Amino acid sequence: MSKHWPLDLTEAEMRAMMAASMDRIGTFISTLPEQAVDRSGEASTQFLSSLKEPMPELGGDFEQLLDTVFHDLAPLSLNPASPGFMGYVPGGGIFHAALADLISNTLNRYTGVASVAPALNQLEANVVRWLCQIMGYPAEARGFLTSGGSLANWSGLVTARHAKLGENFLRGTIYTSDQTHHCVAKAARLAGFPAANVRVLPADGDYRLDPARVRDAIRADRSRGMQPAILVASAGTTNSGAVDPLPELGVLAREENLWLHVDAAYGGFFRLTERGKQALAGIELADSLVLDPHKTLFLPYGTGALLVRDGKTLKAVHSSSADYMPAMQDDDDLMDFCELSPELTRPYRGLRIWLPFKMHGAGVFRRYLDEKLDMARWIEARIRNLPQLELLAPATLSILAFAIRDEDQSLAERNSATRALMQRINDKQRVNLTGTMLREVYAIRVAVGAFRTHQEHMDMLLEDLLEALASHSGTSL
Amino acid sequence: MSKHWPLDLTEAEMRAMMAASMDRIGTFISTLPEQAVDRSGEASTQFLSSLKEPMPELGGDFEQLLDTVFHDLAPLSLNPASPGFMGYVPGGGIFHAALADLISNTLNRYTGVASVAPALNQLEANVVRWLCQIMGYPAEARGFLTSGGSLANWSGLVTARHAKLGENFLRGTIYTSDQTHHCVAKAARLAGFPAANVRVLPADGDYRLDPARVRDAIRADRSRGMQPAILVASAGTTNSGAVDPLPELGVLAREENLWLHVDAAYGGFFRLTERGKQALAGIELADSLVLDPHKTLFLPYGTGALLVRDGKTLKAVHSSSADYMPAMQDDDDLMDFCELSPELTRPYRGLRIWLPFKMHGAGVFRRYLDEKLDMARWIEARIRNLPQLELLAPATLSILAFAIRDEDQSLAERNSATRALMQRINDKQRVNLTGTMLREVYAIRVAVGAFRTHQEHMDMLLEDLLEALASHSGTSL
Repeated sequence: MSKHWPLDLTEAEMRAMMAASMDRIGTFISTLPEQAVDRSGEASTQFLSSLKEPMPELGGDFEQLLDTVFHDLAPLSLNPASPGFMGYVPGGGIFHAALADLISNTLNRYTGVASVAPALNQLEANVVRWLCQIMGYPAEARGFLTSGGSLANWSGLVTARHAKLGENFLRGTIYTSDQTHHCVAKAARLAGFPAANVRVLPADGDYRLDPARVRDAIRADRSRGMQPAILVASAGTTNSGAVDPLPELGVLAREENLWLHVDAAYGGFFRLTERGKQALAGIELADSLVLDPHKTLFLPYGTGALLVRDGKTLKAVHSSSADYMPAMQDDDDLMDFCELSPELTRPYRGLRIWLPFKMHGAGVFRRYLDEKLDMARWIEARIRNLPQLELLAPATLSILAFAIRDEDQSLAERNSATRALMQRINDKQRVNLTGTMLREVYAIRVAVGAFRTHQEHMDMLLEDLLEALASHSGTSL
Repeated sequence: MSKHWPLDLTEAEMRAMMAASMDRIGTFISTLPEQAVDRSGEASTQFLSSLKEPMPELGGDFEQLLDTVFHDLAPLSLNPASPGFMGYVPGGGIFHAALADLISNTLNRYTGVASVAPALNQLEANVVRWLCQIMGYPAEARGFLTSGGSLANWSGLVTARHAKLGENFLRGTIYTSDQTHHCVAKAARLAGFPAANVRVLPADGDYRLDPARVRDAIRADRSRGMQPAILVASAGTTNSGAVDPLPELGVLAREENLWLHVDAAYGGFFRLTERGKQALAGIELADSLVLDPHKTLFLPYGTGALLVRDGKTLKAVHSSSADYMPAMQDDDDLMDFCELSPELTRPYRGLRIWLPFKMHGAGVFRRYLDEKLDMARWIEARIRNLPQLELLAPATLSILAFAIRDEDQSLAERNSATRALMQRINDKQRVNLTGTMLREVYAIRVAVGAFRTHQEHMDMLLEDLLEALASHSGTSL
């Protein structure tokens, strides 16, 4: 290839680019334990402004561009690849999946229609079936991989909307708790529901959706001519890790003829473990559910999933055709994903899950998830024993929340003391925690979930927590 | 790391996995010219069934898994990475972008909120601005990258719905032509519009949306109490490559107070070239527009884009907040993409475009796109000179369509002759074309667009077309 066509890389050029990339990736990964967990605050406004640039007409040196990314840009951020990352909901980003994307991108196969790449389709269909299997779904269940939980929740609501309400859905109502992830209300808005049709009910003392409250709200709505249609439960909230009472909600949904949608983006995969199975009992009653493999299957960001118990409901709303399209299947084994999901051309996400599962087996993922549960219980027990702290939410799965114990100071004082405590922990840059409001109390969350997090990092967390508490008492806030 | 935690790969393990992958990728890429373009038909039902398997509890050998993908599964498909691929809408999948994904996935940064990774955010904001710049959009324009055109079109319609109709939108109507990509009607359905509210108007003789027809339909709808709201134009249809009359439609939309949404998924990037700029005159009048970098920026599948002329309209429908979230920006430079788009956690797509643009400069992409235009005109001229063929749609950009010339046979005979001709070309397995219906005529499309396609492959196409024509005459259909 002449360099008149520089996008047409030779194999030697590709290998050189890969080697240069791998050198930097290797250094990045092998130095993770020594890297500060959060350097997002170090990016000055001036520096950021200096990065603005018009579209370049001419090119530059590849290795210099890599250095810009690896040395100048990426480090100035929160680092969710770190073993010390315990904020938001971690995952970490296994390298196997990164490699799978490299392969998929290079092969560049079209996988929206089964007949175009039937063997790769079968592979992805297998992955979808494995997810259904993990969640206890029947054989007629179907699903698809998305870019993340937000779009999976949206597709769940659109499927429910179509199945329960049809085209005239503006009187349809949705029931959920004030602990549900905010992407659900956003998904409802994008799906066309008026904001007022989403009934956000106050959760119970354990931050769980209260079935009695749902029932009351449904009855009130029916009496005023609304059409109660969708019940959204959480199987592991982001706020506190709480799991809504799924068996009761499943019964209620059936009795009231509502679609039960369960957001299990964070919690669902714990069903691979015995303890998770118990905590998530009833989840198989869901009409649709959302999983985030980029959370608790440890994948890099970019993979969610929607599963529906009755696969035909997906096709009913997503199916569409055109003259320029290839023929679709009527096959139980293969899945025309463009007929089941909103995307037509899309990245081939199946390999990201297939490759690590086939290389290590589900057993390894089970072991990692069990370890996360163990470690969350371990730190929970330590926090319970610290007199200065109050456990606000136990580790139902692997998220828990605590605050400075209420000692007759004002709520504002208590909250700012808790914030200051978290800041002291984070300032050590070995672990990173994020906070939230649980009712009116500011809470520090511990979200155990990065695959690189092991007991030594929990020891670090405890060490830094104890030190921060000591200096907190010293300043006698 | 003990192998008790096998997901925690050592640097040596990662490098070994990468080397094994690169060996296979290298072979795949360097043998592309010799590979058959379409082996999807070789996958037997029996073989596909044999691939079904339950979730594996135990792992397997990594190199064997790679061989399964590279040798057993991927080859049994249509190969859009091939230089001979001229079906549907090609792109090819540049390796730079595959490498960029590998890096993004390894770094695993959260880029939905600017403050969490501000420097990487600035990089992606630059990319969005470059796309706006290419399309002639003003400074207040905003946008975001998606997984592809379907979701970008959906987000465009949702943004338009919110801006023009608010929450009570069931009387809102959408106008488009029968040549518009079917994902638009699907996007309207997913956005909550009743199917009957999408006015699919017959295109003119050049397969373009007729402004007079739109105006009539709007008036009829207003008189029956509907709310005309959105006009969807195509800047390069999939069927024939036609570009709707954008200047006239821009005026019409303004006069009638409609939102003009332009699907430029395939055609938009030709605005980098002088000829493209002329063909796409008026595109900057669009209120929103869709681009597919995985088409005419040659990226691997998985990147579309929505741009809106008034950035505030994106925020108006997508903004959402929660206690556990970090603070959002009020900054003109950075972009909180979770406030502008439907996704919260998402893959970092910016690097896929930034890296190849910075390495080669926009000039190289311009040169490739100009080459595609040249080659489409070249084959168009050859087809015009072949007496057995009729050009049905010229190469407005890089797609054209033709059929066997009408020789007093029945329409069905003519169509099956054209189909047979295409089959003969494709059977040679050097180039791959796909067909469509243009009105009632079956048409063979030539979509020049894979970055690896150069003049030698066009020569191949002509050779195979001439041979197929000769054997067609021989069989005197």
